[in-house]
Amino acid sequence: MELSKNKIKYFSSFAKKKTRDEEGKFVVEGNKMVAELLHSNFVVDSIVATPEWLSAHKPKCECFEATKEDISRVSLLQNPQDVWALARMKEPSQSFEIQDFTLALDGIQDPGNMGTIIRLADWFGIQHIVCSKECVDVYNPKVVQATMGAIFRVQVHYVDLPKWLSQLQGFDIAAADMEGDNVYTHSVSSKTVLVMGNEGNGISDAVSNIVNRKLHIPSFNTTGTTSESLNVAVATAILCSEIRRKNM
Amino acid sequence: MELSKNKIKYFSSFAKKKTRDEEGKFVVEGNKMVAELLHSNFVVDSIVATPEWLSAHKPKCECFEATKEDISRVSLLQNPQDVWALARMKEPSQSFEIQDFTLALDGIQDPGNMGTIIRLADWFGIQHIVCSKECVDVYNPKVVQATMGAIFRVQVHYVDLPKWLSQLQGFDIAAADMEGDNVYTHSVSSKTVLVMGNEGNGISDAVSNIVNRKLHIPSFNTTGTTSESLNVAVATAILCSEIRRKNM
Repeated sequence: MELSKNKIKYFSSFAKKKTRDEEGKFVVEGNKMVAELLHSNFVVDSIVATPEWLSAHKPKCECFEATKEDISRVSLLQNPQDVWALARMKEPSQSFEIQDFTLALDGIQDPGNMGTIIRLADWFGIQHIVCSKECVDVYNPKVVQATMGAIFRVQVHYVDLPKWLSQLQGFDIAAADMEGDNVYTHSVSSKTVLVMGNEGNGISDAVSNIVNRKLHIPSFNTTGTTSESLNVAVATAILCSEIRRKNM
Repeated sequence: MELSKNKIKYFSSFAKKKTRDEEGKFVVEGNKMVAELLHSNFVVDSIVATPEWLSAHKPKCECFEATKEDISRVSLLQNPQDVWALARMKEPSQSFEIQDFTLALDGIQDPGNMGTIIRLADWFGIQHIVCSKECVDVYNPKVVQATMGAIFRVQVHYVDLPKWLSQLQGFDIAAADMEGDNVYTHSVSSKTVLVMGNEGNGISDAVSNIVNRKLHIPSFNTTGTTSESLNVAVATAILCSEIRRKNM
């Protein structure tokens, strides 16, 4: 099919959360990401791609043959590639069973951090991420790209986080805390929900009240003038790494 | 002093590497970052700030009183704060002595990754980062902001990396490698230079030939369809964490 001006306008509108939510669709860009999408169980709605890409992949959805220039008209990337796709969001699951080790995010705002955390969760075998409603939209294009495909595998749920946490049974609810146990020298149960807080303000008071295990990543800087904290995705990575290592 | 149109034009030009290199100065933005700058041993050249900020801090350099609107004219941030500063770059040191555990970066391109790595290096007590000339400029404003102040403490050197590494004596030269030793179960010397490679292509062939210790961060994903890799800043964090923990 040909890519009309109207279609370009329609596709471009998915940069906005409002359009995404109304239409229940989100943007996936780039050769590698779309290849992952096609191998996932997500439904692909439309694809805009070069003739070469289309004849190589022959996707079974609405396809638009386009020049690189046309792709850049719908693209949200600085350097658009050969393919742009629109995929359908998954219906939010009404209930889900969490496994042993789960991640909860309380107000993560930066799309790059969110995407990086989803990517590392996939690496550490974490199937569910439970987010407060204040977290950035998982279907934000910058989040999607930063996941490098992990968004098709890790399930992300938006809930009333304090309520959800307070109903949990049999799990330690852990959070990073300067006053907490040194994560390198203390054991941590594999039945843990690790809560990571907002980039600037940490975890909210309502969630803080429910935390029953405080963990500290000690600094190895001995000059006394170190950074106050680690980037939240980096701190998440170190804590996930330690919790998995301890329970190998 | 008043902020003239010419000054605005001059200050705005520091978004470009060419101007930064010619003038030997770089931009530091935001209340927290400039506070860290004033407490560092970097020389501050000019400050553009609100009257309130100036009377609270009384910096000893060329100061321009400005409205928030004027600050946004020189600012490179989406949400400019009360203060914008121009600082002098440090002269590159002709020689430097590395300590036990050092980080080397081979072609890191993304400013956010570079800044995050400098920040975590500060946390892990790594005083020197040795970069290949292909790495993103450490004085790129996005790098500076992502360091959250660590740029004022960690020394970053740009060198001919294969040559520099090949002259090292008494150090293990380690890199992440899928075929390497499981980092959780193998010991790593505290006299290690850890090399991290480019986001898309990993480490260069010239550097790869010098690496004498390969380390692997195992995935805990058992579905067989995990991400191919971790974000480079996340992988750096996990490796630094493990190397420091093992040598506590």
